Amino acid sequence: MAKELTSRSENYAQWYQDLVIKADLAENSAVRGCMVIKPYGYAIWEKMQAQLDSMFKETGHVNAYFPLFIPKSFFSKEAAHVEGFAKECAVVTHYRLKNDPDGKGVVIDPDAKLEEELIIRPTSETIIWNTYRNWIQSHRDLPILINQWANVVRWEMRTRLFLRTAEFLWQEGHTAHATREEAVEETIKIINLYADFAEKFMAMPVVKGVKSENERFAGAEDTYTIEALMQDGKALQSGTSHFLGQNFAKAFDVKFANREGAEEYVWATSWGVSTRLMGALIMAHSDDNGLVLPPKLAPLQVVIVPIYKKAEELSTISAKVDEIIPLLKARGISVKYDDNDNKKPGWKFAQYEMQGVPVRLVIGPRDLANGQVEVARRDTLEKQQVSIENIDAYVENLLAEIQENIYRKALRFREENIRKADTWEEFKQLLTEKGGFISAHWDGTGETEKRIKEETKATIRCVPLDSQPEEGTCIYSGKPSKQRVLFAIAY
Amino acid sequence: MAKELTSRSENYAQWYQDLVIKADLAENSAVRGCMVIKPYGYAIWEKMQAQLDSMFKETGHVNAYFPLFIPKSFFSKEAAHVEGFAKECAVVTHYRLKNDPDGKGVVIDPDAKLEEELIIRPTSETIIWNTYRNWIQSHRDLPILINQWANVVRWEMRTRLFLRTAEFLWQEGHTAHATREEAVEETIKIINLYADFAEKFMAMPVVKGVKSENERFAGAEDTYTIEALMQDGKALQSGTSHFLGQNFAKAFDVKFANREGAEEYVWATSWGVSTRLMGALIMAHSDDNGLVLPPKLAPLQVVIVPIYKKAEELSTISAKVDEIIPLLKARGISVKYDDNDNKKPGWKFAQYEMQGVPVRLVIGPRDLANGQVEVARRDTLEKQQVSIENIDAYVENLLAEIQENIYRKALRFREENIRKADTWEEFKQLLTEKGGFISAHWDGTGETEKRIKEETKATIRCVPLDSQPEEGTCIYSGKPSKQRVLFAIAY
Repeated sequence: MAKELTSRSENYAQWYQDLVIKADLAENSAVRGCMVIKPYGYAIWEKMQAQLDSMFKETGHVNAYFPLFIPKSFFSKEAAHVEGFAKECAVVTHYRLKNDPDGKGVVIDPDAKLEEELIIRPTSETIIWNTYRNWIQSHRDLPILINQWANVVRWEMRTRLFLRTAEFLWQEGHTAHATREEAVEETIKIINLYADFAEKFMAMPVVKGVKSENERFAGAEDTYTIEALMQDGKALQSGTSHFLGQNFAKAFDVKFANREGAEEYVWATSWGVSTRLMGALIMAHSDDNGLVLPPKLAPLQVVIVPIYKKAEELSTISAKVDEIIPLLKARGISVKYDDNDNKKPGWKFAQYEMQGVPVRLVIGPRDLANGQVEVARRDTLEKQQVSIENIDAYVENLLAEIQENIYRKALRFREENIRKADTWEEFKQLLTEKGGFISAHWDGTGETEKRIKEETKATIRCVPLDSQPEEGTCIYSGKPSKQRVLFAIAY
Repeated sequence: MAKELTSRSENYAQWYQDLVIKADLAENSAVRGCMVIKPYGYAIWEKMQAQLDSMFKETGHVNAYFPLFIPKSFFSKEAAHVEGFAKECAVVTHYRLKNDPDGKGVVIDPDAKLEEELIIRPTSETIIWNTYRNWIQSHRDLPILINQWANVVRWEMRTRLFLRTAEFLWQEGHTAHATREEAVEETIKIINLYADFAEKFMAMPVVKGVKSENERFAGAEDTYTIEALMQDGKALQSGTSHFLGQNFAKAFDVKFANREGAEEYVWATSWGVSTRLMGALIMAHSDDNGLVLPPKLAPLQVVIVPIYKKAEELSTISAKVDEIIPLLKARGISVKYDDNDNKKPGWKFAQYEMQGVPVRLVIGPRDLANGQVEVARRDTLEKQQVSIENIDAYVENLLAEIQENIYRKALRFREENIRKADTWEEFKQLLTEKGGFISAHWDGTGETEKRIKEETKATIRCVPLDSQPEEGTCIYSGKPSKQRVLFAIAY
């Protein structure tokens, strides 16, 4: 075995950390809280980006780019936003360095102090709405449907690769609309798009829902979320879509003349997913042997490993592989032939399992003589002898089946881990003994929500969009409730 | 006419500025020196990115991502690099804001001062080579062929949209090799790749060459460049590829065990092109009516405008257009049907000319009756009646011809504007009267180069790769010279 992982049962957090490093996805950098995304990890992120980008474009969105820097004063303009974001930020105060007069390298040039400090964007609503003011005069200028792929910085104190880093990569959509209805519709359209992406591409089932007021984005009237369940029973917020009302339009004075010629403030949404999805993807499917990737996001879908003793055997195998590879590629399947002589087959098997390559084909002289190839699937680790004829069609089907299987497995796990609690005792017991999502009645107050969090660390993940009204009493306060909400301990 | 441009002959700089704004490519932001890249401009950049990215991948490179921040001390490690880059930088000194105790919005929290300041990357050699130290032990870890798409910041005092901005977008390749030969080969491979991209996709001829020592990248042993000529006779450095020798490996202590087991420092290259290419693209081809885009990089290649008086006429035209559009799309041509009733055809023509859409099809009732369509090409502004039958094949050929034609036109202009000068008087006269590239003998000293720059603003753009040895005397010093070099006034 090439490298060994801590097992999930032994130490889940350590397993995750080991896996990110050993599968060559990312590592910590010399800058506190900032990661280096390594080529293999970045290739997965690129696959995610490409798919999301095409989904945004299909729904009428276009990309643009706004500055990295935000003048400090912009943050004070939207009251709730400043509370939420103008805190743990990277602040640029100077624009020049100079040689230290005492010869100790370079130092800040005190003459190059900025009049107004610049904040590295933690999110771009303020700079974008300040720009939209000049772009919007009339209802004919609306809607604006813009997305940006960018890096952002939030000075997190405790960081974990992909899940919480000071700098991360994301996309942020910022749309402007003439009516409340249209903006709400956009908000919901995007949360549905995110859920589709999570389920169909990441093979990760999610609960769509609305956040409670406490958990809402700073400056939003409503925050929609997709929440996924990780194998340790913790929830992971995987994407959010915010209906911002007219808050940013009012803060930045963005008005338009409606069809009747009257001035109105513009309605806004914003929405984003980030490299945090990499953390979700890793934790949703992987096992003690390493990464398990859904074929649709795997940078490499098939690896072919030859088994041989003599050079002639290798050349016979290679000749056959040369026939197979174009057939696979013609079906849009990415494939690598690893005939590297420096590593043993067992080492290769372990390495490709660690990196989550969905399908491995192993060919030895005997297989070849029998017209067969050994096919190993990463999700179940099952091996099978398969006829080499039509192997391309077989692999294509198998990739689809793996995609489907890991989704079903994750869905089953999620369904087994949504439980109802009707009393406070039951709630606490489920939380400590089982984890997962707990569906429970809540009196609707921020106060109760806060107390529950203080006592158990559980937060309200969302009010699921598909939840039904149901009379009940709040598990904590005993006050009346009209609907269950979903609690969990979250990342 | 929708919007009017300053003409090039009247004021070239103002023409450029007007064009960038009126073609909706970019604008200045609220942050000094930082631009907003608007959707239409960003769509062109995305086309460039996609093409370059596929060329990098075809030549074996992979993408990764390194931190935005660089610890200040890293800059002091490579002596030449610190001189070149640790100057006009954005410096992060604090990581938290707080509410002003006097109630005046938010202020820096003085308790949140960083122990060591962080520089926003102006280029990433230092942080990347600090990372490579841990990735490279043996010759088997080499080569590393990594590219990064990222934003960088250089605190420029005078900025111009796309050409020189404080923040800009770029790609930076950083490769590590076991031998000098292999690193030099990589450096040259990339400058050839850049030249191919410029010529085949941007339709912009370039001179490939090597920089003089004064113009070299800070920390490089050799800088290769592609230099393009703009319509005002100024040169624009459009891409550079640096052979870094072992400088960064030594500065960051990156060694590997060679095949014989002996330790050696690693050999490095770095290379990049940026959103500056947008400025080059705009200036290379555009005219007094607006942008002229090479079809291969045009976000929209064909626009169809109906001409009609009555609603029935429009519906007949639209029915025909509904037949044409799928035929064009099947040939991979992007097309938009602009039947917007709010704008007159003349306004639309001017707008699409301003935005450089390569081909316009105009269809009126009479055209339709004659089985014809009016085809206007943006590059020459010529119009022609063409049979509507096989219009898709006609347009496909026309797009290829436009791509070819604007390249030829730019090449002719460039060839007409490379002139030899053999005396200092001739040199100065050509520079002031004609501009363009001047091929002249130079004694090879930085001192002469500096004096020429001081007296004329002209710099040595490069020693062309295809230049032949030729005995001569330096135009400035009269000392012996073995080769002509290319001078120009540059952006």
